[in-house]
Amino acid sequence: MAYHFSKILSGRFEDIKEKVVEALKEEGFGVITEIDVQATFKKKLDVDFRPYHILGACNPAFAYEALKAEPHIGAMLPCNVVLQEINHEQVEVSAVDPVSSMQAVKSEGLAETAVKVQMKLRNVIESL
Amino acid sequence: MAYHFSKILSGRFEDIKEKVVEALKEEGFGVITEIDVQATFKKKLDVDFRPYHILGACNPAFAYEALKAEPHIGAMLPCNVVLQEINHEQVEVSAVDPVSSMQAVKSEGLAETAVKVQMKLRNVIESL
Repeated sequence: MAYHFSKILSGRFEDIKEKVVEALKEEGFGVITEIDVQATFKKKLDVDFRPYHILGACNPAFAYEALKAEPHIGAMLPCNVVLQEINHEQVEVSAVDPVSSMQAVKSEGLAETAVKVQMKLRNVIESL
Repeated sequence: MAYHFSKILSGRFEDIKEKVVEALKEEGFGVITEIDVQATFKKKLDVDFRPYHILGACNPAFAYEALKAEPHIGAMLPCNVVLQEINHEQVEVSAVDPVSSMQAVKSEGLAETAVKVQMKLRNVIESL
């Protein structure tokens, strides 16, 4: 079972990030966290890494629905979207598949929400 | 399979958060993201929710090891630690079990790292 939906795009990293943020917005997700992995590794480990950002995407209505069904599911929120440079001006964008990442969680109410969010995140990647 | 390690502590939310941040530090994790779920739900949905924070904990050396083994695993990073008020001055602290959340990911190299991080996060919760 794949745990992410991915697509490779051509263009500048920052331009693609803007496009991703916009596509997430179209599906009702705001970006509430952002980690610059490359900068973190440089600072903390002094190692070089490719440009790699982790965006934490949250659709508040679905997050609320999920937390009402499963009080500990914050342990797996928000839903991440990863951008990584795989070649010069080629960026791979990957959204986590929440159905896959939450498969250890046995909760019927949550499963319904996860399927809805899965569809929305798949739409985001397909729209890019 | 449980997907989190949890413990209920008595005290003020903010004091317990400080204790959690300190315990994470002892095991080599920094807090690199923080989401105030209660405030987000109030602002975005105008609904009341209990105090609920999601801390994104990252041990840079293990994150580097994980990303070298599995380039898309950023979709499941950082490891979350949730604090939620369950009663007056009673706070439940839950760390995600990375072995459980990453069970859909078929990668031997990653599995070894996930087990090491699992042990560290379990130590964090037990030390509280």
